[in-house]
Amino acid sequence: MSEKINQLKEILAEVSDLDHAARLLDWDQQVNMPARGSEARGHQLGTLGKISHEKFTSEQVGKLLEDLGKEFASSKSNDAALVRVASRKYDKAVRVPSQYISRQAVVIAKAFEAWVEAKGKSDFSIFRPHLEEVVQLVHEYVSFFPSADHPYDTLLDDYEPGMKTAEVKEIFNALRPKQVELLKAIKSAKQVKDDFLHKKYNENKVWGLGEKVITKFGYDFSRGRQDKAPHPFETSFSVNDVRITNRFEEGNPFANLFSAMHESGHAMYEQGSNPAYERTPLAGGTSLAVHESQSRMWENLVGRSLPFWEYFFPELKKAFPSQLDGVSAKSFYKAINKVTPSFIRVNADEATYNMHVMLRLEIEIGIVENKFAIKDLPEIWNAKMQDYLGVVPPNDAQGVLQDVHWSNGLMGYYSTYALGNLVSAQLWEKINADITDLEDQIRKGKFDSLLGWLREKIHIHGHKYDPQVLVKKITGSKIDSAAYVRYLTKKYSDIYGL
Amino acid sequence: MSEKINQLKEILAEVSDLDHAARLLDWDQQVNMPARGSEARGHQLGTLGKISHEKFTSEQVGKLLEDLGKEFASSKSNDAALVRVASRKYDKAVRVPSQYISRQAVVIAKAFEAWVEAKGKSDFSIFRPHLEEVVQLVHEYVSFFPSADHPYDTLLDDYEPGMKTAEVKEIFNALRPKQVELLKAIKSAKQVKDDFLHKKYNENKVWGLGEKVITKFGYDFSRGRQDKAPHPFETSFSVNDVRITNRFEEGNPFANLFSAMHESGHAMYEQGSNPAYERTPLAGGTSLAVHESQSRMWENLVGRSLPFWEYFFPELKKAFPSQLDGVSAKSFYKAINKVTPSFIRVNADEATYNMHVMLRLEIEIGIVENKFAIKDLPEIWNAKMQDYLGVVPPNDAQGVLQDVHWSNGLMGYYSTYALGNLVSAQLWEKINADITDLEDQIRKGKFDSLLGWLREKIHIHGHKYDPQVLVKKITGSKIDSAAYVRYLTKKYSDIYGL
Repeated sequence: MSEKINQLKEILAEVSDLDHAARLLDWDQQVNMPARGSEARGHQLGTLGKISHEKFTSEQVGKLLEDLGKEFASSKSNDAALVRVASRKYDKAVRVPSQYISRQAVVIAKAFEAWVEAKGKSDFSIFRPHLEEVVQLVHEYVSFFPSADHPYDTLLDDYEPGMKTAEVKEIFNALRPKQVELLKAIKSAKQVKDDFLHKKYNENKVWGLGEKVITKFGYDFSRGRQDKAPHPFETSFSVNDVRITNRFEEGNPFANLFSAMHESGHAMYEQGSNPAYERTPLAGGTSLAVHESQSRMWENLVGRSLPFWEYFFPELKKAFPSQLDGVSAKSFYKAINKVTPSFIRVNADEATYNMHVMLRLEIEIGIVENKFAIKDLPEIWNAKMQDYLGVVPPNDAQGVLQDVHWSNGLMGYYSTYALGNLVSAQLWEKINADITDLEDQIRKGKFDSLLGWLREKIHIHGHKYDPQVLVKKITGSKIDSAAYVRYLTKKYSDIYGL
Repeated sequence: MSEKINQLKEILAEVSDLDHAARLLDWDQQVNMPARGSEARGHQLGTLGKISHEKFTSEQVGKLLEDLGKEFASSKSNDAALVRVASRKYDKAVRVPSQYISRQAVVIAKAFEAWVEAKGKSDFSIFRPHLEEVVQLVHEYVSFFPSADHPYDTLLDDYEPGMKTAEVKEIFNALRPKQVELLKAIKSAKQVKDDFLHKKYNENKVWGLGEKVITKFGYDFSRGRQDKAPHPFETSFSVNDVRITNRFEEGNPFANLFSAMHESGHAMYEQGSNPAYERTPLAGGTSLAVHESQSRMWENLVGRSLPFWEYFFPELKKAFPSQLDGVSAKSFYKAINKVTPSFIRVNADEATYNMHVMLRLEIEIGIVENKFAIKDLPEIWNAKMQDYLGVVPPNDAQGVLQDVHWSNGLMGYYSTYALGNLVSAQLWEKINADITDLEDQIRKGKFDSLLGWLREKIHIHGHKYDPQVLVKKITGSKIDSAAYVRYLTKKYSDIYGL
């Protein structure tokens, strides 16, 4: 048997190498590549993807997984987890014909180009035929799999293994009225002042402070780096090479700081993965929601908390004395948490963010159920914005065209953003029960107990546990909105005197 | 037949994609990668190399090449050239067992580490056992091939297709006495002043001027970029993504400028390759010597010429008025061409550079002929330095350990550096016959006719013509030292008043 597991590991190691090489090509495309290199890069990525898929879906791998699956059926070892995770991926991968994959690559490449143009011109009609093709491919993809309770389950499972559409709906149904209620209360309260956030701040100084903060958090620059890119993201090529990107927007200087915190949260998760899992499917994070729980925790529960700013505001003020003249840690804290229903998800505050996500989930489910025609999406989007957030985008660029996901063929992904928020609060309650002086530690700029806890309970396990299993193992409950509602209510009651 | 050539091209395109992906991983390792990422990067490069080798040496490729070789035997088309070049690579690749390749990878990885340490400590004994293993592998490599006129032929052919050891020896035998004679004359002439070259110059300013110069030359930054790395090099991932690296040494500020010129020469060659050759073995440069002829031409025949400095010195002086106070274009020109026999090849002036190369060729041939024992190399090296250049390195770091090549398993490579110099001068005579006012153009900062000539005669052809065929086609003569000797003699007679 050890012969077979070693054979499997050898093949999976090569698949992992190919996938990580592809990730570097992608990172380079976003960070360094001269624009004209994109055609060749597309070929290179296509070839790596094709070979990786061929290697992974070979009959040999199927046979090894079948034999090892029987052998390890009742084992809880790491090797058993490896076989389980690899089998699930394999069972999916073999259902998707490689002819479909190459067809999809072509559709997506064009859809992305069309989306860029459509967003630039704020003209949905440019994107519409491409989105129709993408949706056609999504239907086809679903058809490759045995029918589930809901066709959307098949999509969701790719990002959040084991999660069902019905579960997410139930969670969001419980969450939505509480968030609406909270928003209503905030709306009628005295508003907070944040004009000083939008003054001119020196880019290099902000960037430097961000790197200082995430180094303090525990992001290990000796195993990573931060580069400029059009969009902030995290990517890893091994447990010892986990990189993040960031950008600087003149009118919104502190977005750079919070993005650094956010991406470092993802990165610390990857840097904390068990080195023994390297070059196996167990390496890395277990799901998008759990990944997002880490990024949102460092960005919001730590980075947008009062204790953190009691620690860090003096340093910020020293760097920007004129811009922050007369501003206190408390008033800065209030300003960075100001609630304003707005059009753009990525700029949303914590009180409105999930609303953006729920809207997208409803639309995606409507699309998959063939209830919504693509041509009607702008109208549907705007109506839901009015319903959820009480604002209507002035154009499609700030509405239905704002996000890149659909142009990349990604459908089933969005809800993980909100689920991640919920998980971050569930974990936070447990952490504060375990580390009772955590707030004091943060006030002193100490983050090592927190990171140590996350490493031990979450990071080290990589993909070993499915997300719901992991969350339940740690918190005693599956993913649930109660903790997040408690967190939001407490935070905003304090800020807005509710 | 068109079916077969298309099948072949499809496979070779994937091999090309894999090889270019590997090059990006290598570039990233030298430019961006956190040091701790090296183990995983080694695995990724190993996997890409293995899969590329397997794909290229498959029976299917062998059969296609055999059939197509017969079909295209008398054709001069691009497809015929493609089949010829691919067949030659294939015939070599299939002779090398993949077991050898993976064994070599391990030896080299360790040899490189040992070389770094040995050079740092200037202690040859640390490197010696590793070099012995490398040489053992070199002997083994030679044994995979039918015996040639000289065993060194097999090695040389990998870098300079079709070139024989006897030919190189003959060329060098003609060259050596001329260079010795010139050096003697220079030694007894009045020396030139160059103290102003070693003052403090602002790094960013020098770097910026370098980018300005190479943009003027014609290096297309929209299809490339220049980054910092420990060593200057050029690499390409497609005709539209050709990158260079550079460094800055405090005590030797203008090395940055000349390295930029040198690497841009390599890069313009790659950028000028026929786009129709993309993803085939015809893309890129035809050999190391022809490549080096391009880099050395822009660095030396253009960049270290008087007309160039008559054009560019005013701008340099404007940037560094105090450092260059009282210095004229002519005296600057003389200073950057100052001849000083020294220990380090990469810092050598044009009059001594080839001597360093000839020394290495003799040693490599001695090693391959089993005439030299590895343990004796430091002594042999120093004796030859005395003989060739009249100086003896004070330690092995500045002697036998100075270059990285052997630690990478590269043997058979060095002579291409000198051959490139010779070719650059042969081409230069022909160019000046075709573009009679070239000097005037350079004096005005115009380089487009020169680049146009190189594009048309050399760059566009990629690998289509073997190096000797190409040089003869253009200049009427095979690679030969006469033009270079004329060039050196004229230049140094002027500078030293010989």
